[in-house]
Formats: sequence, structure tokens, C-alpha cells
Amino acid sequence: MTLEVADSRLAALCGLSQQTRDLMDAVALTDVGEDELLDITTRLADLTTRLQAKSRTSPQPFEIAPDGTLRHLGNAVTGGANPYALPLVVDRHDNGVSADVVFRPLHEGPPAGVHGGISAMILDHLLGQAVANAGLAGMTGTLTLRYRRPVPYGRPLVATAEHTTSEGRKTWAEGRIALPDGTVLVEATGLFITPTHWA
Amino acid sequence: MTLEVADSRLAALCGLSQQTRDLMDAVALTDVGEDELLDITTRLADLTTRLQAKSRTSPQPFEIAPDGTLRHLGNAVTGGANPYALPLVVDRHDNGVSADVVFRPLHEGPPAGVHGGISAMILDHLLGQAVANAGLAGMTGTLTLRYRRPVPYGRPLVATAEHTTSEGRKTWAEGRIALPDGTVLVEATGLFITPTHWA
Repeated sequence: MTLEVADSRLAALCGLSQQTRDLMDAVALTDVGEDELLDITTRLADLTTRLQAKSRTSPQPFEIAPDGTLRHLGNAVTGGANPYALPLVVDRHDNGVSADVVFRPLHEGPPAGVHGGISAMILDHLLGQAVANAGLAGMTGTLTLRYRRPVPYGRPLVATAEHTTSEGRKTWAEGRIALPDGTVLVEATGLFITPTHWA
Repeated sequence: MTLEVADSRLAALCGLSQQTRDLMDAVALTDVGEDELLDITTRLADLTTRLQAKSRTSPQPFEIAPDGTLRHLGNAVTGGANPYALPLVVDRHDNGVSADVVFRPLHEGPPAGVHGGISAMILDHLLGQAVANAGLAGMTGTLTLRYRRPVPYGRPLVATAEHTTSEGRKTWAEGRIALPDGTVLVEATGLFITPTHWA
């Protein structure tokens, strides 16, 4: 299989994942009748069986993207081939990382608001990326979230994070989810630990 | 519409959501060929359109469950009618709350491990439930997670949480995700604030 064919298959897989996200959104919001719900469920079962005809035991592995960066297409937060992922697209800058985020109704916790746990999930990921972007490596040791204001869905938000300090095997990073005008909704501070066998 | 009809429609909606979860899992792991991926994507688009024929603008509202408890079928973590939700089923006890959890491959962050952000999401929810179970009310103010060991998917795990102390409008809770033998994988401490207009 040439790289070109491999890439077109990966593109098809990412397209299927995006269509699955659209389906998830539609399921969470649908108000059609019971007979229609039951018929659609039966048809989804058939398509599920077709996808299971040949399966992996773990999600898509890490791949080298066209720009040379490492990408994990199966990652639960960023994976283009994982329907569970937003997917979060992380931009790297000299002094940190950022991501434009629009949460969806199916991310609801409190009425009209994004579940606090989903904000936590995004910030956990972004702080780790900020540490990696600073050329450091480590596993999350401690993550502290401060919830300032409700996080709305359906509106463009901006998530940013940056490495702050390092001391031996410990590295700290900070991040936040904010409105486009800079109003902070949720803040996070993380401590990352470099495993001893890497040091 | 009688209550019985409403319930059977809700059951159909929860069945559709569970089938959608099975589909998501199949998408994340499928290894079928490109033509099959493309054909399935087209069929999913048709089913999505059918579900969108009549839609709500926000997820399913809160409902009274048969046991008299309040349930939010659209909740991103616990909602039976939300494909994004595990769904987490929280058991209430005299001294806290618990939930049996089996994470799935599409929850992957590090290879063979659950994304740290997903552990954070579960603990955010469970600590809030522990506060509610103690008869207190509050919004999450601060949540601190300590990652002790990698969290595996595909294995039964136990998540527990309990209210610890209260002081004026502040309430604290603690929780953890553990192996069935009690080995703690991730711990959390949360501070919850009762809004002044409730006090």
C-alpha cells in the first residue's frame, strides 16, 4: 500500500468519524417519534456490524502528519479518527499553545452550560501540550482547576496554556478557557513529572 | 400523551443512544477498507438527516425517574439519552456515592491508557454528586486531581466520593478512581461553593 492510498483511507476514516460526531449531536437533540427512533437504531446496528467485520484492539496509532509533527488519530481529545474527540486542534506558538473551541449541546452539564468535567478534560490535555511545546516531557502529576464562570456551548471560545517554571524533574504549566474578549471562565495549573527512566 | 407512551419513547431514545455508543466504539477500532468506510459514512449521513427532521435546541431535560430521583437524560457524563455519556451510573449510600466504571478504547490518551482528562471529568461529576448526596448544594469552585497510576481501559474500575467538611458556604469532597482491590489510580479533592442567592 502506497503512502497516498494509506492517506486517502485515513481521510475516509476521519470523514466517518466526523459524520459520527454529527450523528451523536443529532441523537442528543432529536425529537422525532418512537417508530423512527427504533428504525434508525436497527439501521445503526447493521452499520456497526459492518464496521466490526475487521477491527483493531486499540485505537489508531500515532502517525507522522504531513507537516512532520506526531499526531495520534485515536486520541480521545484530539483524534481526528475518534468520534469521541472534539477534536481539539492545538496550535503551537513560541510561548505556548492555543486552541479555538466550540462546545456542543451534547457537552451539557448544568442547563445551557458545558459540563465542568469537559472543561477539565480540555485543560488537562492543553497543559500537557504546553509542556511538550516547551521541549519538556512529563506525565501529569497534579492538576488544579478553578471554575470562575459558567462555560457556554455553541459559542467560540479560546483555550490557551503555557509552561511556567521547571525544577529538577518537576515542570509547571498554566492554562485557561476564555471568551474571545479574554474573560476567563476556567483556569488550570498543572504539575508534570518527568519519569526517572527518561531523566 | 400518557406517561407510559412517554416512557417507551424515552426508552427508545436511550436505546438509540446506546447503539450510537456501540457505533462510536466500532468507528474508533474499525479496520475495514476505504470503500466500505465511504459507503457507511453516506448511510450515516442519511440517518443523521432523518434524526434532524425534528430537533430540540438543547439536550433532553431533567426527568423524574421511576424511583423518584431526578435524572438528566441529556447530561454529558450520566445521560442515558446522550451518546457522549459513558453513561456513569451513580449509586448513593449513607456515607458517599460510588460508580462501577469500565472505560473503553475510544477513551485512550496514552497508549493503552485512559486520557487523564476523562478521569478528571468522571471525578468532577462524582464529587458534585457526593456533595448533593450529603444534602448540600454548590457549584464546583476548585478541583484538584492527583494522578497516581495509569488508568486502564477495558477493566472494571470503581469510582467513589464522599463529602468531607463544610464551613459556611464552602463544602469539600474527596474521591478516587481505583482498581477493585482498592489500589488508587487517580484522586481528587473538590471545593464547592453555595451561591449566595441560595443561602
